[in-house]
Amino acid sequence: MTLPFAQRLQHVETSAIRALFKLLGQPGIISFAGGFPDANLCDRQGLQAAAQVAYEQHAAAALAYGATEGYAPLREALAQHMQSQSATVQPDDVLVTTGSQQALDLIGKTLIDPGDKVIVEAPTFLATIQCFRLYGAQLIGAPTDDQGVDVTALEQLVAQHRPKLIYLIPTFGNPTGATLSLERRMAVLQLAARTGTVVVEDDPYGELYFDAPPPPSLLALSAQVPGSREWLVHCGSLSKTLSAGLRLGWMVAPPALRAQAVMCKQFSDANTSTLAQATAAAYLASGALPQALSHVRAAYRERAHAMLHGLQQHLGPHVTYNQPQGGLFVWARFTAPGANSTLLSQRAAEQGVAFVPGAPFFATQPDTAAFRLSFATVPPKQIDEGLQRLARVIETENPKK
Amino acid sequence: MTLPFAQRLQHVETSAIRALFKLLGQPGIISFAGGFPDANLCDRQGLQAAAQVAYEQHAAAALAYGATEGYAPLREALAQHMQSQSATVQPDDVLVTTGSQQALDLIGKTLIDPGDKVIVEAPTFLATIQCFRLYGAQLIGAPTDDQGVDVTALEQLVAQHRPKLIYLIPTFGNPTGATLSLERRMAVLQLAARTGTVVVEDDPYGELYFDAPPPPSLLALSAQVPGSREWLVHCGSLSKTLSAGLRLGWMVAPPALRAQAVMCKQFSDANTSTLAQATAAAYLASGALPQALSHVRAAYRERAHAMLHGLQQHLGPHVTYNQPQGGLFVWARFTAPGANSTLLSQRAAEQGVAFVPGAPFFATQPDTAAFRLSFATVPPKQIDEGLQRLARVIETENPKK
Repeated sequence: MTLPFAQRLQHVETSAIRALFKLLGQPGIISFAGGFPDANLCDRQGLQAAAQVAYEQHAAAALAYGATEGYAPLREALAQHMQSQSATVQPDDVLVTTGSQQALDLIGKTLIDPGDKVIVEAPTFLATIQCFRLYGAQLIGAPTDDQGVDVTALEQLVAQHRPKLIYLIPTFGNPTGATLSLERRMAVLQLAARTGTVVVEDDPYGELYFDAPPPPSLLALSAQVPGSREWLVHCGSLSKTLSAGLRLGWMVAPPALRAQAVMCKQFSDANTSTLAQATAAAYLASGALPQALSHVRAAYRERAHAMLHGLQQHLGPHVTYNQPQGGLFVWARFTAPGANSTLLSQRAAEQGVAFVPGAPFFATQPDTAAFRLSFATVPPKQIDEGLQRLARVIETENPKK
Repeated sequence: MTLPFAQRLQHVETSAIRALFKLLGQPGIISFAGGFPDANLCDRQGLQAAAQVAYEQHAAAALAYGATEGYAPLREALAQHMQSQSATVQPDDVLVTTGSQQALDLIGKTLIDPGDKVIVEAPTFLATIQCFRLYGAQLIGAPTDDQGVDVTALEQLVAQHRPKLIYLIPTFGNPTGATLSLERRMAVLQLAARTGTVVVEDDPYGELYFDAPPPPSLLALSAQVPGSREWLVHCGSLSKTLSAGLRLGWMVAPPALRAQAVMCKQFSDANTSTLAQATAAAYLASGALPQALSHVRAAYRERAHAMLHGLQQHLGPHVTYNQPQGGLFVWARFTAPGANSTLLSQRAAEQGVAFVPGAPFFATQPDTAAFRLSFATVPPKQIDEGLQRLARVIETENPKK
C-alpha cells in the first residue's frame, strides 16, 4: 500500500529547482544564484518600532484572527501607496495575501481548470510555472526581448490559443530584468480589453529602479484604456521593498474575481498574519518607506553597476547580457557555440561561483545557453571576484587557440 | 464577456457562512457565534518580548525569506512540545504552515483528485468541508456521539467507500466539543493501518482542557499501533494557545507526504512569515507557554461552567447539550418538534444574542435542530444574560399552553 497522491502532482518537476538550491549552501561560494533581496538592507529599527506600535496600540487586532480580505489600515496604506504611483485604487480593491506567491496561487485556484492554456513570458518566474501547473495549466511561452514581451507575437498566441490568462512581470522581470516599454504596455491593455483576456501583472520589483522610475504599471495605465481594468489583476509585494520576513503581498482585481479569491483564501489560510499586517501598517503610517527605498535602491544600483562593469571587463566576448534599469537580475547568454549553461553552472560551483542556468525559467523550449545572475546580496568587491572566477571557468572550458 | 472562473468554484457554497459572519457585527449583541479564541487572553507582554528577541538577535532570519519547511528553531521547539505530550516527533518531521488551515489546504492539494471520497465527522469544521470540496472531494459524514466518531460505522464507511482520507478532530472538536475515547482512538489507528487509509488528526484544541488532560493524541498513540504512523497526518496550531495573530500551524506527516506538501507549499506561499516564526520560537524558548496555557485554560473553564450552568438554569427542557471537557464549544439541540435552528438563530439575533445553526457543519444530511454555542469570548455574566435572552426567544416561539 502506498500513499494515494493526487494526479496534479505529476505535472510538477522540481528537481532542477532543488539542484539550484543545493548550490547556494556551499561554504566560500560567491553566489549570484539567489533570487532574494538582501535582508541586511531592511530597516530593522523602523520595523521593530512599528512592531512595538502594533503590540502596544493595536493588540486587539494584531493578536487575533482577522478579515480574510486583510487588515483595514494596511489595505488603506497599500491603496494610498499605489495611488502615489498614479493608480486609481480604493482600499476595498485590495486583497492582502501571504506574499505575492499566494496571489498567484489564488489566481490559479479561481481561474485555472485542468487543460486550460496560460501564456507566460519566455522566460518567466519559475515558481509561477509550477504554481499554475499544479492547477493543470498548459503553459505557452511568448517570446521576449530587451523591451519585455513581444506584443505582436503575444496577440497571435492569444488568437491561436484563447488562453485563460496572460501572466507578465512587466517591470525589471525575473529572470530577465527587462522592462516592458510604455508603448507595449498600452498594447497589452488594449489586447486584454479587446479580446476579454485576463492579464496578470506581477510587480514585486517595480520600486527597485536604479535611476529613473520605470513606466507606469499596467494598473496605473489601465485608466487610459477603456475596459482594460475589468481584465487586469495586479500583484504587489512588500518582500523586496520592506522585508520578506513579513510575508506580505497583495492583489488588486476586478470585484467578481477578488470575491472568489477571498473565498478561496478563506479555505487556504483564512487570513494573513494580523501581527505582520499591523506591523506593516504601522511602518507605512510612520512615513519611513521612501527613505528606506532610497537606501535599498542605492545599494542595488551600486551592485548592478559593479556586475555590469565586471561582465564587460572580465567576460567580454564570452557572454552577452542585458542592461537592467532596476530589480535584482542580469540575464545573460554564453556565446560559445553549443554552450550549456546547466553544465557550466556545475563547473562554476566547483570553482566557487554560483549562478542559475536559464532552462528552468522557460515553460517550453528552453534557451540552454542562457543564465541568470543576481547581484542583490553580493557586495561590489565580491561581485568582481565572482565574475573573475566565472571567467576562469569559461576560459578553461573554451581555451583560446 | 465574463471572467472565466474555474469549475472547482461551483463545488463551494459560502452563503451560510457569510450569513453567520454578518450576525457577529451587530452592536450590543451577545455573541456565542464566534469560532475564535479570546485575543484578550494572549500573553501580549511575553509575545512582545519574544518579538524583541527576534528583531535584535535573529534579524538575519526573521527579516528574510526562509525554508519552506519552516524556521529550524521553531521546528525544534514544536517537536519538543509534542514530545512533552508523549509523541515521538523529530524537528525534521514538522512542516510549519500558515495556520493549520493551510495544513488542510496542503492535504487537499497533495491527496485529493476530483471525485475522491473523504470521510468527515457529522458534524465537522465547516472550513474543512469547503477546503476539501475546492479540490473536488465528495464528502461523506460519519455519525458521532458524545465520545466522538462512531468507529463501527466508520469502519463500514471505509469498507464501502474506500475514501482517500478520514478527517477527524478527536479532541474537543469543532463544532461539538466532543472528545474521542481512548478505546476509539486505538480502533481508528488500527483501522488506518489495516486498511491503508490516511487519517488526518486536526488538533487545534487539545491543550484547552478544563481539568484533566484528554487522552493522548492519535500521534502519540500511533507508537502503540504498528503501521499506523505511516497513514497518520497530525495538524497543530498556535492560534488557540499563544496567539492567532502569528498565523502559525504545523503538520506532522509521513516523509513522502510531507515532501509533497513542502513542494505544494513552495508554490502556495513559499514560506510562512519568518518574523512570526522567529517570534514564536523565541516565545517557546522563553519557557512561558505553560503559564500562559494555565491562564487560558482557567478562563475557558470558568466560561464553560457559566454556560453549562446557564443552559441548565434558563433553558432547561428546551435544549439538550453535551458536557465538553475542554475547547471552545457546546453543541446543543432544540427539543421542540420540528425546531429549526437556522430560523431560531435569526430570531435570536433580533433579540440580541447570536449563535451558529448546526446545518452548515454537516457535509450531508444536516441536523436542523442542532446549534453551536461558543463561550470563548464572552465574560460569565454576559453568558448568563445571553442565555436568558435565548430562553425568551424560545418561549416566545413555543409559548406554554
